[in-house]
Amino acid sequence: VSGSDAREKLASEGLRLFLRDGYAATGIQGIVAAAGVPKGSFYHFFPAGKESFAAAVVDRYAALAADVRKQILFEPGAPPLARLRAYFEYYAEHFGALGFREGCLLGNLSAEVADSSEMIRARIHAAFAAWEADLAQVIAEAIEQGALAPAAAPAQLARYLVQGWEGALLRMKSEKSAAALQEFIAATFDIFLAGRS
Amino acid sequence: VSGSDAREKLASEGLRLFLRDGYAATGIQGIVAAAGVPKGSFYHFFPAGKESFAAAVVDRYAALAADVRKQILFEPGAPPLARLRAYFEYYAEHFGALGFREGCLLGNLSAEVADSSEMIRARIHAAFAAWEADLAQVIAEAIEQGALAPAAAPAQLARYLVQGWEGALLRMKSEKSAAALQEFIAATFDIFLAGRS
Repeated sequence: VSGSDAREKLASEGLRLFLRDGYAATGIQGIVAAAGVPKGSFYHFFPAGKESFAAAVVDRYAALAADVRKQILFEPGAPPLARLRAYFEYYAEHFGALGFREGCLLGNLSAEVADSSEMIRARIHAAFAAWEADLAQVIAEAIEQGALAPAAAPAQLARYLVQGWEGALLRMKSEKSAAALQEFIAATFDIFLAGRS
Repeated sequence: VSGSDAREKLASEGLRLFLRDGYAATGIQGIVAAAGVPKGSFYHFFPAGKESFAAAVVDRYAALAADVRKQILFEPGAPPLARLRAYFEYYAEHFGALGFREGCLLGNLSAEVADSSEMIRARIHAAFAAWEADLAQVIAEAIEQGALAPAAAPAQLARYLVQGWEGALLRMKSEKSAAALQEFIAATFDIFLAGRS
């Protein structure tokens, strides 16, 4: 494999393993074995070790998540609240197909390593902030179009939704059912974002 | 130390270390060293090892959390919505004092080990369910007293609050600020539970 292929394979397998097993339970040895690259290759790309590797994996995850938002949350022509709902429903289906496992890497690493790694924490925070900004933009569009009355600033509403969704993913994992995500979507649109326009 | 003292010390130090470092990063050796008991004592009380120990620690955490609910959420004489708000504000202050670290053991272990340990997952689920039931009871009281209109069943509203709070704790950890918890409280009472009575 070429250099950039090896880096790509490491990041891709790292993301899979961090989502499956968490940060501490995933070792460099397991990552290089899954990627099929020599251990020296890992240290060539990530000389500072697992922590800086995980920070790069968070960035990769954030980029993939931003792609999903671009496709679903900003789908041209659809009304903003319909796009917002389709976005959460896309992920509800995704996690159903996964057997209610994994959840969100940002939430999982917030829980597990945000206290112990300032480097990883800062990348998680940046990824959350970008996500919140995109949701706030869609909410602002809904308000501009009269589909939603401004109960609070779009940024505040967006942060409440991100937090609710993250908590729903934790509850999904502990419950191993679709209930938490479906209830989040229903209560968000029937109560939190409803009856105010 | 006597037998029950040793078990108590192990559970208490286990809770502290799981909250501080997470599940995988906490070893039995570190737990017995912190508790000041011989390693054989750990296996005497928890012959099945770290997983069954963690399940007992979740039960301990759930019992402590239930005590807080009994004192604040069910404080005699106070109106239900005031108790609900005081409950979240108590924890916001608690986490402020902790420097926005740790968060909730139920959420953290949901993120880290609910997929890999059925035993721990089941205990987390039970603890969440007890918490949701208590919040639902307070919400039902608020509805009965006319302080809140029934936008949905109390159990549904309670689950939305638990999820939002859990997500706010994750965001608090990634942001290292009081913002997420304060915003959760404000939007919950100003929007989600407001304007419907």
